[in-house]
Amino acid sequence: MKLATIRTDGTTRAVRLDGEVLVDLGLPDVGTLLKQDGWAESAASATGTELAAADADFAPVVPAPSKVVCVGLNYRSHIEELGRELPEHPTLFAKFADCLIGAYDAVVRPEETEQLDWEVELAVVVGTQVRRARGAEAEAAIAGFCVLNDITCRDWQFRTREWLQGKTWDSSTPVGPCLVTPDELPGGVRPALDVRLSVDGEVMQSASTGDLLFDPVDLVEYVSTIVRLNPGDIIATGTPGGVGHARRPERYLSGGETVVAEIQGVGRLENRVVKENTS
Amino acid sequence: MKLATIRTDGTTRAVRLDGEVLVDLGLPDVGTLLKQDGWAESAASATGTELAAADADFAPVVPAPSKVVCVGLNYRSHIEELGRELPEHPTLFAKFADCLIGAYDAVVRPEETEQLDWEVELAVVVGTQVRRARGAEAEAAIAGFCVLNDITCRDWQFRTREWLQGKTWDSSTPVGPCLVTPDELPGGVRPALDVRLSVDGEVMQSASTGDLLFDPVDLVEYVSTIVRLNPGDIIATGTPGGVGHARRPERYLSGGETVVAEIQGVGRLENRVVKENTS
Repeated sequence: MKLATIRTDGTTRAVRLDGEVLVDLGLPDVGTLLKQDGWAESAASATGTELAAADADFAPVVPAPSKVVCVGLNYRSHIEELGRELPEHPTLFAKFADCLIGAYDAVVRPEETEQLDWEVELAVVVGTQVRRARGAEAEAAIAGFCVLNDITCRDWQFRTREWLQGKTWDSSTPVGPCLVTPDELPGGVRPALDVRLSVDGEVMQSASTGDLLFDPVDLVEYVSTIVRLNPGDIIATGTPGGVGHARRPERYLSGGETVVAEIQGVGRLENRVVKENTS
Repeated sequence: MKLATIRTDGTTRAVRLDGEVLVDLGLPDVGTLLKQDGWAESAASATGTELAAADADFAPVVPAPSKVVCVGLNYRSHIEELGRELPEHPTLFAKFADCLIGAYDAVVRPEETEQLDWEVELAVVVGTQVRRARGAEAEAAIAGFCVLNDITCRDWQFRTREWLQGKTWDSSTPVGPCLVTPDELPGGVRPALDVRLSVDGEVMQSASTGDLLFDPVDLVEYVSTIVRLNPGDIIATGTPGGVGHARRPERYLSGGETVVAEIQGVGRLENRVVKENTS
């Protein structure tokens, strides 16, 4: 099953994607859906107004999650190519919901940065409130997956020793287009999927989510040890090698580029980078 | 004016404190109040059911802020005593709303930490949505102040290079008891107030908010450059010297202690530390 939040008539609606058709689920967004007991069954069986998928305007799949938890270096081959030890614990940092945008929205390049960079990531969407979930409970807490491009202002990320201020710029971070339930993916809640990001057609990142050091279930276990996870919460699982900051020469987004982030079977984000005009 | 969110009859209510009396404002919490245009005037003039303040059970003053932004080292004298350069930019990190508790609630000591520590902080509560606020706009965006104790699991804070996982444990962080509007405080939106924290009556931290390197207005300007601030958002302005981790020998909360965090004219948090029993 694929679920999305679309914008229509000045509001948003939760929909199920049936091929080329969107079925209105009678709720404002996927976050609201996930808070309902038995959401999977009710979403699967719902009938409602139908729209053409081609006309849809995608909002962030969960517009206002209570948490967006991001994971630092998590692709094994990338850590090894950097010559670093494999970490014992995942590195976690936060984004706030106000940085999220839809799958095809413009990424805003703020005038305050000279180093806007990309990071394609597999994102976990939580479907059940859990704390200290282990094993089967952690697996069952995963509603599904989507794509997230962890757009980052590197100059602000490295101004101080904490990354947050480079990571949570307003309207920076596309997430979507859909929530894809684990039964749709090879590997289920531990999927091994091709991940790829290109800028104006040039492939910059290419890896497999099978290379994740901490897989989606590990991350639900780890984060929920610290704090409850709520329906709609998002865990971005980290990015593979190939970001602009690590290239020689360094490459950044200056405005005007089209960035495509895609994960096999999960979906595709396509975002034009637009310079912000604050004057 | 002093405003609070109290628990009553299985729900919460926004109230105004008139000395020993609480006046019900007809809304579920202070976060909801702050989202309304003209909240200050309507709260000041509201009449409603009255309750005795002595009987009140305080919830987090804003139970579900969209952001809790925290500031690292920000007391000038403490930075200098550590022999460090004064930083050019504030260090920012996040907490999630699920870590917030009321002013007199028990602080939960998770069984996973051996290094539970305290950090008394002056917290700014935002009253208007702003982005890139400067000067008078940033000043006007400050609804008021409260006290926040940034309870921290030091062992988890330093597991990786990002602090988040030590900072956002569930039900760890008291905030309140009230939002105190700037007109009640000497110095208004840049108040110079005594800050103090004690553990079982022993004073551990003692400083003045006049010593803040980045004052509340600076922080509203800085954070709102990055991301919009919404009504109810909280900025914790950093803690002075005297935390347990920096003492020799180190001092941590093992359970059973009473921690009092108070700021002159703003209020007082008093929290018993209780060992979590997850078995």
